Amino acid sequence: MMTSEPELEYFFHPRSMAVAGLSPDPYGTWLNSVYLESPRRMGFPGPIYPINPKGGRIGDLMVYPTLRDVPGDVDYVVSCIPANHTPELLEQCARKGVRTVQFYSAGFAETGEPDRIDLQREIVTMARISGIRLLGPNCMGIYSPASGMNFAVDFPREPGPIGLLCQSGGNTSYIVRSAAARGLRFSKAVSYGNACDINECDLLQYFTEDADTRIIAAYIEGATEGRRLAEVLNRAAATKPVVIFKGGYTAGGVRATASHTASLAGSDRTWDALIKQAGAIRVYSVEEMTDVLMALLRMRAPKGWNACAVGIGGGASVLATDELNQVGIKLPPLPRDTLNGMKQLIPLAGSMLRNPIDAFPLVGVLLSRSTSEQTGADSPLTSRIVVRGDRGWGDFIGLLEDWPGLDMVLFHFAFDTPPIPVGDWVAATVEPTLSAIRFCRLPLAVVFHSIATEAGWRVSLKTQDVCRTYGLPYFVSMRGAAQAIQRLTDFSTTYPDRIDKSALSSY
Amino acid sequence: MMTSEPELEYFFHPRSMAVAGLSPDPYGTWLNSVYLESPRRMGFPGPIYPINPKGGRIGDLMVYPTLRDVPGDVDYVVSCIPANHTPELLEQCARKGVRTVQFYSAGFAETGEPDRIDLQREIVTMARISGIRLLGPNCMGIYSPASGMNFAVDFPREPGPIGLLCQSGGNTSYIVRSAAARGLRFSKAVSYGNACDINECDLLQYFTEDADTRIIAAYIEGATEGRRLAEVLNRAAATKPVVIFKGGYTAGGVRATASHTASLAGSDRTWDALIKQAGAIRVYSVEEMTDVLMALLRMRAPKGWNACAVGIGGGASVLATDELNQVGIKLPPLPRDTLNGMKQLIPLAGSMLRNPIDAFPLVGVLLSRSTSEQTGADSPLTSRIVVRGDRGWGDFIGLLEDWPGLDMVLFHFAFDTPPIPVGDWVAATVEPTLSAIRFCRLPLAVVFHSIATEAGWRVSLKTQDVCRTYGLPYFVSMRGAAQAIQRLTDFSTTYPDRIDKSALSSY
Repeated sequence: MMTSEPELEYFFHPRSMAVAGLSPDPYGTWLNSVYLESPRRMGFPGPIYPINPKGGRIGDLMVYPTLRDVPGDVDYVVSCIPANHTPELLEQCARKGVRTVQFYSAGFAETGEPDRIDLQREIVTMARISGIRLLGPNCMGIYSPASGMNFAVDFPREPGPIGLLCQSGGNTSYIVRSAAARGLRFSKAVSYGNACDINECDLLQYFTEDADTRIIAAYIEGATEGRRLAEVLNRAAATKPVVIFKGGYTAGGVRATASHTASLAGSDRTWDALIKQAGAIRVYSVEEMTDVLMALLRMRAPKGWNACAVGIGGGASVLATDELNQVGIKLPPLPRDTLNGMKQLIPLAGSMLRNPIDAFPLVGVLLSRSTSEQTGADSPLTSRIVVRGDRGWGDFIGLLEDWPGLDMVLFHFAFDTPPIPVGDWVAATVEPTLSAIRFCRLPLAVVFHSIATEAGWRVSLKTQDVCRTYGLPYFVSMRGAAQAIQRLTDFSTTYPDRIDKSALSSY
Repeated sequence: MMTSEPELEYFFHPRSMAVAGLSPDPYGTWLNSVYLESPRRMGFPGPIYPINPKGGRIGDLMVYPTLRDVPGDVDYVVSCIPANHTPELLEQCARKGVRTVQFYSAGFAETGEPDRIDLQREIVTMARISGIRLLGPNCMGIYSPASGMNFAVDFPREPGPIGLLCQSGGNTSYIVRSAAARGLRFSKAVSYGNACDINECDLLQYFTEDADTRIIAAYIEGATEGRRLAEVLNRAAATKPVVIFKGGYTAGGVRATASHTASLAGSDRTWDALIKQAGAIRVYSVEEMTDVLMALLRMRAPKGWNACAVGIGGGASVLATDELNQVGIKLPPLPRDTLNGMKQLIPLAGSMLRNPIDAFPLVGVLLSRSTSEQTGADSPLTSRIVVRGDRGWGDFIGLLEDWPGLDMVLFHFAFDTPPIPVGDWVAATVEPTLSAIRFCRLPLAVVFHSIATEAGWRVSLKTQDVCRTYGLPYFVSMRGAAQAIQRLTDFSTTYPDRIDKSALSSY
């Protein structure tokens, strides 16, 4: 199955596109940015033809009054015209031999008005007769960096392993940007709106077979082919990890999906059973989805629930413990050998030699040199532990690696908890730590948390950069980290073979 | 009770302070910033004397070798010296007539080591004999902007209505900064660490009687005087709203509090009963605490659970509905009169005239002028609704105010969902909306959400500024907003008299 080309492959490789309803205004409108500038900047290799009855030019491109007037072949058409003119456009598409039409146009079944529901039926019938496949209506379309398709100028040019199907255009952008900001990349993302033709089943099937996709992410508001969905989802989840965000998981949310994408959302219990049975991973927000994608793509899979948490601050350690315990991640006491080893490494014993370890030896050392050596104070902030020499971190990590039954390590950094305001010194002290811990062989995650101020946020961005450079998995809140690691551990302990099959460790 | 001075009032008004253990290094250490620069910048009116056996100077201040050498009276001493030297310091404090000693010094009972536990007992005994009150050990101390006490240079100078007691120094800073970033201010914040003398009961009692405190916020890891706590908490919550974050709400968290502040955390069920019985508001993170403080201080109290949500984007509306429904906030259908009124106001009917209202008339209008008038497209993004004339917003809000049984309105703005990247145009379009809705007489909240990119974050900061200028309650995620509004509504419907008594509406 993986060797032959997936059925919808041509969708992502049109030789040419036309966009109906763009403005010939010389300064362009934002739709020109969306459907002309975005694919051109992404390197779309073929011609893109703007269509508008007014004719004229948009920058260096001639605007054709109708699709008929376009000189060459057109594989893919984007419709930005009012809904009631779309049947006429479809007629022209049929004559021109167009293979796919994507409707940015809204105002169909999602309005709930009978004539608009009929209109949607009409275009589906027309398309079936002509052998044209429809995407949408009421959708943003396709982002496929490798083939140059795109609808937002700020989406990354580099492709990646995530295949996203998303019933909401706005959420597509938000998911792509959220993941991109964290260093994650997409093979393709498809915003498919009302799903009048191409639907979640088709797309799940495509991504299951797509060799460029190693993880499938889905935002789905509803489904019409229940039995097919179960089959397709089972096969998808058996082939690669599938993360599902079901929009409309409350009674009110279900009603809202009807007016958004004319979806029949179905009972949440049915969805939950469907997702569980397939062994897909369910999330309840875009933030959770981003965190779970981060865990799946960047973190080694924990074999169990025993974690060691290492970070500065007693309060932060209490909070971390609660968040981790809350999702079932345990912080077992340090074994005698680990404790003895650490006592040799670290001068002052006591409370910090418990799990969570309330100290960050090599982060603290830079500050402690200027504090405790002068005052001798047992500072509650930084100077409790000073690791000797440069080998400190290596030895420390070695002790964790030798800890029998330890499944993972979390290194957490608070930004706005010290009494002196966060500054670039934080990034400067965090960086060497990140550099050292990347060689840890245990499943590992970095958590940046307690970020409240603008300065804290700016500095955390620098440390995020470092994590991305080293390929370290990182999270921007302890709760987000805990939930994502819970999902990953649940997945990796329930389906250990699926983690191996997806070849994530090679990422 | 409210007319006489609270018992601990002198705590916050020392005439002079001494800080033992500061470095005479001319370049200072960060502790100099914490305990010298912070109160001086905050305008502490009396002298502050640095103490160090080495003598010397710190900037313009002479460093005294011992407390004995200080020429004037000293009311308040901060100890930054090693734990084992603290009995000697206390002896000098007794002779000098010091009233309060705050121990930044750590290394006492929280280490779990018998000699350190004994050491803590020793200083308590010494203090009792001398009539000195102790704060800490293992704490940051007092932030009291009106009297110039402070331990972080970036804390706001302006006082406000929140009185905070916090067992963790790091969490004190994080809570103050989180709230400050959202425009909320404090009467006093006290980091009280191991609570060897002054404890949560004393501080709750103080804030109950303190006329400058209108809301009490507490981060508590444990308590030793169970019965007194119940009494004090009942009285506090009957007097003003009390928000409690109990650190250590899981089994592991309880263990972590022991090594952080030597706390006996107690069973979580006991704490939950204690908090519920008093009618205090329980939260489970600093972020939740900040959101609940925002709701209590800036939002009118909803009389019930019926909300109308107004915002751009179908996907965002589905997500908003789920988050609100999840916590019990309902989005009832628009009544016929409201619907008819809106149809007169807004040209195109259809899906957007449902609750949640998927449209933001006057935000969309600026963009739609340049889009739909040229192409005529039914854009799914912005141009579905164009409100006529400048009266648009007023009429729209009037219709909401006339909606029988509507308890609150939520205006939500997504930042990283549009296909064109977020830019200053967002702030420019959001601002007039915020300006208009501030006159709405219904309980109202603003939610900025779907923020993923650096640009999105920067622009949202500008809109946050506008909210603070107008005194509008705002939240930075839909989940955070939903949870905080749930807490507020639960509180205001269970204890309607407490909302009135606290005089929040006049804030």
